[in-house]
Amino acid sequence: MEVTGQHFIAGQRVASATETFQAVNPATNETLDARFVEVTKAEIDQAMTAADKTYDALQTADSATIASLLEAIADGLETVGDALLDRAHAETALPMGRLNGERARTCNQTRIFADLTRKDLWRQPRIDRGDSERVPPKPDVRTMLYGVGPVVVFGASNFPLAISVAGTDTVSALAARCPVIVKAHPAHPGTCEMIASVISTAVKKIGLPAGTFSMVQGKSNRSGVDLVQHEKAAAVAFTGSLQGGRALFDAVNQRKNPVPFYAEMGSLNPVFLLPGALEQRADEIATGYIQSVNLGVGQFCTNPGAVLGLEGENLESFLSAVKVAAAKVPPATMLHPGIHAAFEQGQQRIISVDAVKRIGGSSQPPVADSHQASCNIYEADISQVGQQEVSEEIFGPSSIVFKCQSVEQMVEYAKSLDGHLTATIHGSDEDLKNSAALVRILQRKVGRIVFNGFPTGIEVCNAMHHGGPYPATTHSFFTSIGHQSIYRFTKPVCFQGFPANCLPEQLRSS
Amino acid sequence: MEVTGQHFIAGQRVASATETFQAVNPATNETLDARFVEVTKAEIDQAMTAADKTYDALQTADSATIASLLEAIADGLETVGDALLDRAHAETALPMGRLNGERARTCNQTRIFADLTRKDLWRQPRIDRGDSERVPPKPDVRTMLYGVGPVVVFGASNFPLAISVAGTDTVSALAARCPVIVKAHPAHPGTCEMIASVISTAVKKIGLPAGTFSMVQGKSNRSGVDLVQHEKAAAVAFTGSLQGGRALFDAVNQRKNPVPFYAEMGSLNPVFLLPGALEQRADEIATGYIQSVNLGVGQFCTNPGAVLGLEGENLESFLSAVKVAAAKVPPATMLHPGIHAAFEQGQQRIISVDAVKRIGGSSQPPVADSHQASCNIYEADISQVGQQEVSEEIFGPSSIVFKCQSVEQMVEYAKSLDGHLTATIHGSDEDLKNSAALVRILQRKVGRIVFNGFPTGIEVCNAMHHGGPYPATTHSFFTSIGHQSIYRFTKPVCFQGFPANCLPEQLRSS
Repeated sequence: MEVTGQHFIAGQRVASATETFQAVNPATNETLDARFVEVTKAEIDQAMTAADKTYDALQTADSATIASLLEAIADGLETVGDALLDRAHAETALPMGRLNGERARTCNQTRIFADLTRKDLWRQPRIDRGDSERVPPKPDVRTMLYGVGPVVVFGASNFPLAISVAGTDTVSALAARCPVIVKAHPAHPGTCEMIASVISTAVKKIGLPAGTFSMVQGKSNRSGVDLVQHEKAAAVAFTGSLQGGRALFDAVNQRKNPVPFYAEMGSLNPVFLLPGALEQRADEIATGYIQSVNLGVGQFCTNPGAVLGLEGENLESFLSAVKVAAAKVPPATMLHPGIHAAFEQGQQRIISVDAVKRIGGSSQPPVADSHQASCNIYEADISQVGQQEVSEEIFGPSSIVFKCQSVEQMVEYAKSLDGHLTATIHGSDEDLKNSAALVRILQRKVGRIVFNGFPTGIEVCNAMHHGGPYPATTHSFFTSIGHQSIYRFTKPVCFQGFPANCLPEQLRSS
Repeated sequence: MEVTGQHFIAGQRVASATETFQAVNPATNETLDARFVEVTKAEIDQAMTAADKTYDALQTADSATIASLLEAIADGLETVGDALLDRAHAETALPMGRLNGERARTCNQTRIFADLTRKDLWRQPRIDRGDSERVPPKPDVRTMLYGVGPVVVFGASNFPLAISVAGTDTVSALAARCPVIVKAHPAHPGTCEMIASVISTAVKKIGLPAGTFSMVQGKSNRSGVDLVQHEKAAAVAFTGSLQGGRALFDAVNQRKNPVPFYAEMGSLNPVFLLPGALEQRADEIATGYIQSVNLGVGQFCTNPGAVLGLEGENLESFLSAVKVAAAKVPPATMLHPGIHAAFEQGQQRIISVDAVKRIGGSSQPPVADSHQASCNIYEADISQVGQQEVSEEIFGPSSIVFKCQSVEQMVEYAKSLDGHLTATIHGSDEDLKNSAALVRILQRKVGRIVFNGFPTGIEVCNAMHHGGPYPATTHSFFTSIGHQSIYRFTKPVCFQGFPANCLPEQLRSS
């Protein structure tokens, strides 16, 4: 499958700028083929204008047509075969097994949204019938959801398939009948181009207008700002760093007509170990914890960056098991040199805090010049560290264990938290019952509370909520994973006094 | 009922600053009693801290208790009698009949939210049962909505009862179990204090913590900025001008931890007259139009600021009837001198546009020195005016009729619209059937499309959507009127792997 370095603008491969960049294999430092061309402001305008003009056709298309588009995308991702995974592997160093699994998840979620839109399950119709006898007469009022308009998507580096060009943001926006313009991730631009080709082919095959989908390449911050500040962008979805997300959030809010900006920016995902848990399952929790910390070389927005436990014999057993498990973790190549550099800086930062000491990690040294991260586990007495010093997320396989003198200290820590995606509690059922106050605090602070499990590995389902207060996301009402993520790209339209035959079909009967 | 000029901070009447302001009767220029004290930053912090500490008690309260609070507020607004309406009349010049009706609506909507919260109808429970047989095992995931935290409310000047201290924002936030801090409107501060007293009494009577509700007085922009930038404010609701709303929106987004900011900032509410309508009902529509333009001295965010019709005999009949109806409208006192001055400036601005001419309005002159606005109706050939020159909302009893040469010109006008709360179409059923393209354009641009009616007079019901893209509001997904307005103040919390007896009751069974 060809990688040309060009954009896909409304079905056409185009590129006009002279500025280019290349992808690098983070494991080998090898420069990969194709020069990717920076998108120009004029090209962004072309993509946005085509999307805007396509909106009406997407509104009037049959539900089956929109569903078929999504199914054709899923089918296309499968039939493209290993070529896609080979390129993703070269660009991200993620193992082939993981990429295979991620493709399965990507196709699965795409088909979930196909089903949602085929059955029109996302419209939320509401009907209040009129009553001409009432004084004053009660109007007939009926409302349902529509797609909001062109959606700009910024995918994540850590899920080159499931949260990238054909990720949840794109497919949920398409399911809501919104045209999509994707900004390719500059760390896996070839993967992005191959997926964009699959989507463009699917759009053509189904017979929808080419403006339904565009994807542009760009390494500069400028290209991202130009995209979100385009007056025709009706909503934006972003998954990535706090720094990147905040910059785009500020750019959107400077618009004359600001629009919803949904960023998922990761979090620390604290884990609370209650007494009963350590008494009964110290070893098992230690193993699960180290697995969760190191999943995908720690490059998960839900990996547990902090653990709290009560000082004592059981915590020492836990820490011993943690050390054993962590030692066995081989260093591994991170997604790209920039993420690896940020990880190493994070390690310097945390170890420079007086009260923090490193208690374990990979015994094997990293291979030189291959951007490998070692697992690092730290500990600190919670009463001796300032929350601010150690609460910032370090993206990668590192985590800190806070020793507490009492459950009250844990509760105080919970009260001091900013917004996070998840919090986890390990304990006996009795522990949990006695921790209602802790649970209530966490309800304000996080989007999801996990009991006796680990926060990584997000189930794609209707009840999933992958969100949380800032800085986890920019709007705590919405989720970026699961069925409900479609609502980010919708707006209600209320029809008052319409005769039945002019109402949308979904609003004709109660 | 006493008016002291003080704030209500967590149940206490307090005020420490020396800076004060007074309310003025806009009809008589009489200064009304009580000196209202500017709130200090320290007092704001007290109110926010008390609210924050109250959050947990509101989460654990019985649904019946929250419902009783709302019912006690509605009862209190009724038993306070005419004193409240007398003060509101003196501060706003709104007629007693209107204020009586507005109180009925206020009590009605408060009881609607009492019912919603008593029956826990707003929680949106979602359950995905676990499956331990699946490979990998499927976790048990259950989610429902919770109140988001302390909510700051800025009421509107034009609804001193229904969108003010005990307005929809306050009662929907309380129904979602959020503590509320109201910024009193400086144009009707005495009315605000009387209502705050009713709410504080109700909080005390029901036995909820005093931090459940606070209200502070302030005329300075600074006090508003301090409120929305307080780190404990979890969401903000605002109803008012674009200028005021945008300033607070920008202030919220400058926070280290931005939070949802919901502003309803009004709009032009265009009305499209299709051929069949003018043929059949030119006189009737003209009468309805002039009534709608002048409702509450035109001080409705949904009053129709622009009408589009096809040039010809029928439009001339409509315009004749408009002139007759408009001439009969007596000039009337506006809400406060500032709104009146802005209205007069708006009239100067619109008449200074070359293509615009005034075609009718109140025949009676306004009474001097009483801030009376006359009705003013303008017309212009749509091909001769720039959209920008005449698209800005003028708050008050003024409207412009655009003469069009074709339905296509109407469609082009619709395409050029910014976000609005409403659009209205008058026509035969046949006209509407032939205007599917126009309806689809309006779906993107507005929150509510009215057929053969007028946009003023919003039904408070479950299907109502009072919202729209910016600048109508700051987030087109949400409504500020009707049952669904509660969702502005909620966030989902997802429970994964919780044993049944530790789940909230609403999530225990499917």
